[in-house]
Amino acid sequence: MSEDRYKKGLEMLKMMHPKSYGELADNLKDIAPDLARFVAEFPYADVYTRPGLDLKTRELVTIASLTTLGHAQTELKSHILGALNVGCTREEIVEVLIQMAVYAGFPTALNAVYTAKEVFEELDNGE
Amino acid sequence: MSEDRYKKGLEMLKMMHPKSYGELADNLKDIAPDLARFVAEFPYADVYTRPGLDLKTRELVTIASLTTLGHAQTELKSHILGALNVGCTREEIVEVLIQMAVYAGFPTALNAVYTAKEVFEELDNGE
Amino acid sequence: MSEDRYKKGLEMLKMMHPKSYGELADNLKDIAPDLARFVAEFPYADVYTRPGLDLKTRELVTIASLTTLGHAQTELKSHILGALNVGCTREEIVEVLIQMAVYAGFPTALNAVYTAKEVFEELDNGE
Amino acid sequence: MSEDRYKKGLEMLKMMHPKSYGELADNLKDIAPDLARFVAEFPYADVYTRPGLDLKTRELVTIASLTTLGHAQTELKSHILGALNVGCTREEIVEVLIQMAVYAGFPTALNAVYTAKEVFEELDNGE
Amino acid sequence: MSEDRYKKGLEMLKMMHPKSYGELADNLKDIAPDLARFVAEFPYADVYTRPGLDLKTRELVTIASLTTLGHAQTELKSHILGALNVGCTREEIVEVLIQMAVYAGFPTALNAVYTAKEVFEELDNGE
Amino acid sequence: MSEDRYKKGLEMLKMMHPKSYGELADNLKDIAPDLARFVAEFPYADVYTRPGLDLKTRELVTIASLTTLGHAQTELKSHILGALNVGCTREEIVEVLIQMAVYAGFPTALNAVYTAKEVFEELDNGE
Repeated sequence: MSEDRYKKGLEMLKMMHPKSYGELADNLKDIAPDLARFVAEFPYADVYTRPGLDLKTRELVTIASLTTLGHAQTELKSHILGALNVGCTREEIVEVLIQMAVYAGFPTALNAVYTAKEVFEELDNGE
Repeated sequence: MSEDRYKKGLEMLKMMHPKSYGELADNLKDIAPDLARFVAEFPYADVYTRPGLDLKTRELVTIASLTTLGHAQTELKSHILGALNVGCTREEIVEVLIQMAVYAGFPTALNAVYTAKEVFEELDNGE
Repeated sequence: MSEDRYKKGLEMLKMMHPKSYGELADNLKDIAPDLARFVAEFPYADVYTRPGLDLKTRELVTIASLTTLGHAQTELKSHILGALNVGCTREEIVEVLIQMAVYAGFPTALNAVYTAKEVFEELDNGE
Repeated sequence: MSEDRYKKGLEMLKMMHPKSYGELADNLKDIAPDLARFVAEFPYADVYTRPGLDLKTRELVTIASLTTLGHAQTELKSHILGALNVGCTREEIVEVLIQMAVYAGFPTALNAVYTAKEVFEELDNGE
Repeated sequence: MSEDRYKKGLEMLKMMHPKSYGELADNLKDIAPDLARFVAEFPYADVYTRPGLDLKTRELVTIASLTTLGHAQTELKSHILGALNVGCTREEIVEVLIQMAVYAGFPTALNAVYTAKEVFEELDNGE
Repeated sequence: MSEDRYKKGLEMLKMMHPKSYGELADNLKDIAPDLARFVAEFPYADVYTRPGLDLKTRELVTIASLTTLGHAQTELKSHILGALNVGCTREEIVEVLIQMAVYAGFPTALNAVYTAKEVFEELDNGE
């Protein structure tokens, strides 16, 4: 049932993004609450729960995609945190970003590295 | 030395892409031989040989990036083969492509799945 | 229930794309059947059935998005047909494509117009 | 005559974007005054005045294109205001943005929704 | 007057693209004749005739932009020919494409080099 | 040897970007020092030192590519400065940006012009 799907997605979201969990729904509640529901249902309940690929790899391919898009630094930040939450190391994340210089070009890869740097510094400062 | 770097890159390229190995250099030899050399040297000698991420994961993040770019179906085909060569399963590759519907949109993900389908069918037909 | 959502999506898909209805599922059945299901469920059951925007406008904004992406000519073709199916005129579709020259640039708009031309010619030839 | 074309474009621009009318010319006057003139002449005198599509639909397809580009949030903001000025409702605009999750991906759609949120809040605060 | 602007654009187009001159108008005459007119008027009468940058440099920056877009290979082909027509050498064009590996990534640069290769081979075969 | 290649790249970087020289290495030293080295080695030692295209043209095509990407305003800023450093005039740079309205669309070109405006104002203010 749809209700279960929504709950399943929220749990996944909560597990992968404990810090930002809730922020999305809050931000969207007045303008597009259904989009917040869709985020829980489609990416988190339908896709991230699928077998066939572990969550660490799922987060790393998401990071590669967001880096390549180039304009989604806020979501990239959130998925760098998500990658750390599911067990990726900082080094693994940075390796993905360096590799993106080959496929998306150096400026795009550099932007993503600067975003990762912000995330790591915020973590080191206990934010 | 540069000579060694080139050889190291060619070996990596040969190992990851045994079938298409040589094609790149052939295709570029009259028009841009240095670009063929750069491909061996930078992506294959400098990046793919780095520790910190196994080749399976490296190929999956490349597939995510090429899918997101959307216009690089020939290279995507080559890296789907490369992913299989370094030990990824068809299922893992398809999982990455399905996940891309979330980040790059459905049309872009569908295009990549059709490209994967071509690769798999060519393999099944012994091409 | 999910079963109902899938059926609702398929009906929408069938109504908007009677010709290509079924092709998607056929094409994906061996490689990514779940992606075909997701297409029915998320875009067609969740999004296109929403009130607040008529189907004609929904198809025209989709055409604007696919034109801007630039690399999704197959999907663009399908949505130009879809736009005609829900009552848009050829002139309205072409107006959207011309306007895209401003926002996505002339080459991208021209590519989309050539795609529309193919669709219109196929229709005129009774294909 | 070119002079008339420029005046016609400025009037259209003034009608669709009364608040930001003049800002563009001011911003560009020292660096690229001809580009300001081109904006008045090509998009506003040549394209937006064309029959065949009402201004509400024209603004919604522009919003779809700018959302899909992903990196043009300032122009997106301006066209969300423009859409409201020509009679679109907030709900119609948000429907377009939600639909973009299907074609441009969730992160790109979410960025656009956050931009719309800013515009709506500024309007509600009388800015 | 607009009539003069159109004629000025057509002459520029004819000078820069003698072979494909006329094709554009033919291709668009039934579907979007105004877009053909806009192409003559805005890019060719308004932009390419501007002082401040010679035509060789104008064609090379256009080639850089089309390469970076990635999905506009037909227009890229036309501008590689245009670049040769205004005096660029094959070597200069290829240098631009190689440099694009840095900014748009290797796959995108490689696609453009293959497009250039086609153009050069067609010229060598007297097509 | 690799050491020489790195030194050659750093010298090129220092000559083209005297102000920002060192910043890159500083910014990356804790997170991705090898990426800083790759920037010196591949773009600056391998590509910018190549004969066949003067540095002014190389910077202008880079500016065209970064404008087209749309999301790389920081790198665009750095290359507008670099273009001035190797002898381009402000007028030549602005001509490239205006021309990009044709190929990448008006919003993308406008963003780049605003970035150029910032660079020019900072220079005029002695920053």
